[in-house]
Amino acid sequence: MVPHLVTALNGPINELEARVLESMPATERWFRLEWMEHTPPFYTSVDIRNAGFKLAPVDTNLFPGGFNNLTPEMLPLAVQAAMAAIEKICPEAKNLLLIPENHTRNSFYLTNVRRLIQIFTQAGLNVRLGSLDESVKAPTAIQLPDGSELTVEPLVRTRGRLGLKDFDPCTILLNNDLSTGLPQVLEGLHEQYLLPPLHAGWAVRRKSVHFRAYEEVAKKFAKLLGMDPWLINPMFSTTTDLNFAEGTGLDALQTQADALLSKVRRKYKEYGIQEKPFIVIKPDAGTEGFGLMTVRDAKELADLNLKARAKLGASGRGLEVSSVILQEGVPTYERVNEAVAEPVVYMIDRYVVGGFYRVHAERGRDENLNTPGSSYVPLAFAESGQLPRLGEKPGASAPNRFYMYGVIARLAMLAASYELETTDPDAEQYD
Amino acid sequence: MVPHLVTALNGPINELEARVLESMPATERWFRLEWMEHTPPFYTSVDIRNAGFKLAPVDTNLFPGGFNNLTPEMLPLAVQAAMAAIEKICPEAKNLLLIPENHTRNSFYLTNVRRLIQIFTQAGLNVRLGSLDESVKAPTAIQLPDGSELTVEPLVRTRGRLGLKDFDPCTILLNNDLSTGLPQVLEGLHEQYLLPPLHAGWAVRRKSVHFRAYEEVAKKFAKLLGMDPWLINPMFSTTTDLNFAEGTGLDALQTQADALLSKVRRKYKEYGIQEKPFIVIKPDAGTEGFGLMTVRDAKELADLNLKARAKLGASGRGLEVSSVILQEGVPTYERVNEAVAEPVVYMIDRYVVGGFYRVHAERGRDENLNTPGSSYVPLAFAESGQLPRLGEKPGASAPNRFYMYGVIARLAMLAASYELETTDPDAEQYD
Repeated sequence: MVPHLVTALNGPINELEARVLESMPATERWFRLEWMEHTPPFYTSVDIRNAGFKLAPVDTNLFPGGFNNLTPEMLPLAVQAAMAAIEKICPEAKNLLLIPENHTRNSFYLTNVRRLIQIFTQAGLNVRLGSLDESVKAPTAIQLPDGSELTVEPLVRTRGRLGLKDFDPCTILLNNDLSTGLPQVLEGLHEQYLLPPLHAGWAVRRKSVHFRAYEEVAKKFAKLLGMDPWLINPMFSTTTDLNFAEGTGLDALQTQADALLSKVRRKYKEYGIQEKPFIVIKPDAGTEGFGLMTVRDAKELADLNLKARAKLGASGRGLEVSSVILQEGVPTYERVNEAVAEPVVYMIDRYVVGGFYRVHAERGRDENLNTPGSSYVPLAFAESGQLPRLGEKPGASAPNRFYMYGVIARLAMLAASYELETTDPDAEQYD
Repeated sequence: MVPHLVTALNGPINELEARVLESMPATERWFRLEWMEHTPPFYTSVDIRNAGFKLAPVDTNLFPGGFNNLTPEMLPLAVQAAMAAIEKICPEAKNLLLIPENHTRNSFYLTNVRRLIQIFTQAGLNVRLGSLDESVKAPTAIQLPDGSELTVEPLVRTRGRLGLKDFDPCTILLNNDLSTGLPQVLEGLHEQYLLPPLHAGWAVRRKSVHFRAYEEVAKKFAKLLGMDPWLINPMFSTTTDLNFAEGTGLDALQTQADALLSKVRRKYKEYGIQEKPFIVIKPDAGTEGFGLMTVRDAKELADLNLKARAKLGASGRGLEVSSVILQEGVPTYERVNEAVAEPVVYMIDRYVVGGFYRVHAERGRDENLNTPGSSYVPLAFAESGQLPRLGEKPGASAPNRFYMYGVIARLAMLAASYELETTDPDAEQYD
């Protein structure tokens, strides 16, 4: 199924597409050289916004939960990438322990887990599921809507290793973003590979650290291509010591919001963009779309009523917000059948393995589409998604568009790699 | 397009398919461990014969020339595998010099060359074509049937390096099987990567060395799966000191043919196969289907008339035959729309990137289908070719069949890796 794209195709984004395509060998080589120095996250998904005048990642997920949205045609790519990843990490591996999220009643998520089992089984591993949920005391079957079932088992921790009954894995793959904190059962596993590492979980991760790394990556890449990094980089700032309940720190937030909106306004003027700029305020930690706020005028923050403050204060799964990130809003101009859409790109190891559109019929182009409980329709990219067609008119070809998305997604993945180096508690210090 | 398979689906082959599928993680791990010790050829294609009672490779090509037969859906896999290969061999690579065959009027072959350019460009290399044909004195455009064109350029050799005018590659990729001998211009290139190495060319390669290595691989793999290696291994023997023109050595050939036919007959009896066994005699060196002979009774060799002897004596491109390989014939029972078909599997680095059926409406099931000048219709495998479906009835699922073909093809690729180690003139000797 090829999504029908009605993106606004004029302006800088076509220049960017042309630049990215003509620089393909240089770009791919640049990534190769970067991967010689940096280790890619085990798997990554990146939400992208295409504004027509600008293209930028807005969220980089190190525990992607939507592999079920990839079409069967994309599976061989995922299996091949998984093989390449395993070969590098532990070629002698036999068993893989997969630790999913605890919310095991979401059938979309369960289908994602089943897809992951499929990918890693076909890459040559025995895969079993272990649960961080302490109420799982015995192997428990979970029904999927299609009648099939998955079995989650209680974890068995010995001194240096984690496994299941009669199952000793060489590698533990987390598909649980650890929003609720670092489980003790995962600490000190020095004899096994724990992927991604604990500090990739949202108990440790901060969006500001990621986007600082992304800014660095975007500048390097923009220099390679000879373009303004702003075209691919959303500007941001952060503020700490906020307390929404008590209303402290809101003045500083308002000042920062005003400053960021001014910066965006200047850029819009520079490029002749006839849009009203906006920024998005979100908790520096945490994953879900709770507590996310779109601001067009800093004054809106002064008028925040209690309800809005409560909403903003409560980020996903009970983390209290004291730090937020203010980020330049990037409207999405992609449409699929009239509904607002944003591309999501999936990667395993350094490889783009597929992507889809997150579509939300009830949301605006400046709103968060990844909202819980909402109906969204993931649409897979065209089958030969990753393969650009040289020589086609910029903007005229979906494959070229997808290639560009893959490049931006890989920039965000590289930023995550920088980020994880910065935050690695076991890193050797050279200073 | 999913080919319509009407393979005879009874008997041992379904057991083999079931065994291969249930052993998938063990099989994939076994390959990973083998690739830790051995380097896969840069790219490989393998012709496979499925007899219903037996499945075996009959030809392993280290300069595959049919990438044009892969469907566009398979291209992302090829690009990803090429990326993985480049990353391992020379991640800093910018330029790739591709040296195609000289017979540049075959439009199928030219389309293959264009496809290779596409794959390696998209993997991030600047690709240009250099010709071994000394009559190419200046850049020469060659038209393709679709109106596009390729440019081949004369090679520029300096002391330690090979390139083109204003083009200094780090890697040289041969898509020329060197049947006519080792070109001097390719010797002593110690500063660059020459892939595949010179001793992979037919000037050096011998089918008997390959199939001896394959026998070793098949035995190891059969032990892993607990099965008779004969189910995947075509028996063979060799004879030297033949001179067809003078008629010398024919007695020895006849004796050997008789012995091999007896061995095949015993195996057929063991498995209750109601077929008349046959063997195939082919030159030990050389690539093409000239001089290939099907023998059902050793007495046929005594009656060889001069014309047949001349045909057998003249292998591809003028190599004189003095050594032949006698190989157990494996009939092909695959049919596509009533025509005899044999699967061909394509690999880059260690990865299966696609496959197709070679179909020949005018040939029998015990005949060579790779014959020059014949009309054959390559049919691509189904899109998700590599991905087996666990739990489906053996023989009932094309994807499972394709997975099994991919396993057998990789066994042949591994054998080629063993073979190239044996014949490497630069290998260190430990004895």
